[in-house]
Amino acid sequence: MSYVYERPIQDYYPDDIAVCFGCGRHNPEGLHIETYWDGAEGICRFTPLPRHAAYPGVVYGGLIASLIDCHSVGTAVAAAYQQQGRQPGSEPLILFFTARLEVDFVSPAAVGAEMELRARVTGFGERKSVVACSVVSGGVECARGVVTAVRAAKLGI
Amino acid sequence: MSYVYERPIQDYYPDDIAVCFGCGRHNPEGLHIETYWDGAEGICRFTPLPRHAAYPGVVYGGLIASLIDCHSVGTAVAAAYQQQGRQPGSEPLILFFTARLEVDFVSPAAVGAEMELRARVTGFGERKSVVACSVVSGGVECARGVVTAVRAAKLGI
Repeated sequence: MSYVYERPIQDYYPDDIAVCFGCGRHNPEGLHIETYWDGAEGICRFTPLPRHAAYPGVVYGGLIASLIDCHSVGTAVAAAYQQQGRQPGSEPLILFFTARLEVDFVSPAAVGAEMELRARVTGFGERKSVVACSVVSGGVECARGVVTAVRAAKLGI
Repeated sequence: MSYVYERPIQDYYPDDIAVCFGCGRHNPEGLHIETYWDGAEGICRFTPLPRHAAYPGVVYGGLIASLIDCHSVGTAVAAAYQQQGRQPGSEPLILFFTARLEVDFVSPAAVGAEMELRARVTGFGERKSVVACSVVSGGVECARGVVTAVRAAKLGI
């Protein structure tokens, strides 16, 4: 499969802010969630480890929420660069933060089985993007999420 | 402050299932979220570590979602035992899983500052409880969540 941007969108985040537990490449203890952009959807693959259980063998919801959150924000970023006809990494920087996260847990997902997340921007405004995300594990949809992502004017508190 | 049950509700979960990354006391790498029950509200305190950042110094949303999820489920469990006039740990076991999670991120929360979560059952059915949760950091509400928790007939896939 070929993607619009060669690397996952998180690889283009500036070094000094790429520390997110979910998707920061500079967080050595983090999840290293990666969003690949195919021009219409953000695609993420992640295999939950035994420590990510809720009950033995079943993935805990907080991990799924984290995957949906970071991957949907990454998808919003990728789509915004494409909408502007620019490569990620070019100036000005495009960043989003999550204003609202909704997750429906549809069926249990197994620890050790690769999950695939597909996210799509369903609403696009000047400051706000809405992203819908589906999570599939073992060929079955295990969760659906909606993220409302807002363009960040600045970062930090 | 005195609580209805001496220990956090998660301490009463059976040993063989207490492995949740969020709230399992037997997950050595987990967050060890604890829910204390005061008879009306579940109360949880948690101090995010530097690795739990989104951007430098600011807590990442996935952690907040995880806290709301496990703490709200714990609150649903504690309230259900009280509603039945029983101590947690007595038979039959009461367990819930999360069917839906909604989080509104209201303001940034600082890494290193203790968070307080207060959760309350706002809807109580035979199989389903709805729990509303507020998260305060540094005296300011940083997030609000709603969890729809469903009584578990059995665990696992």
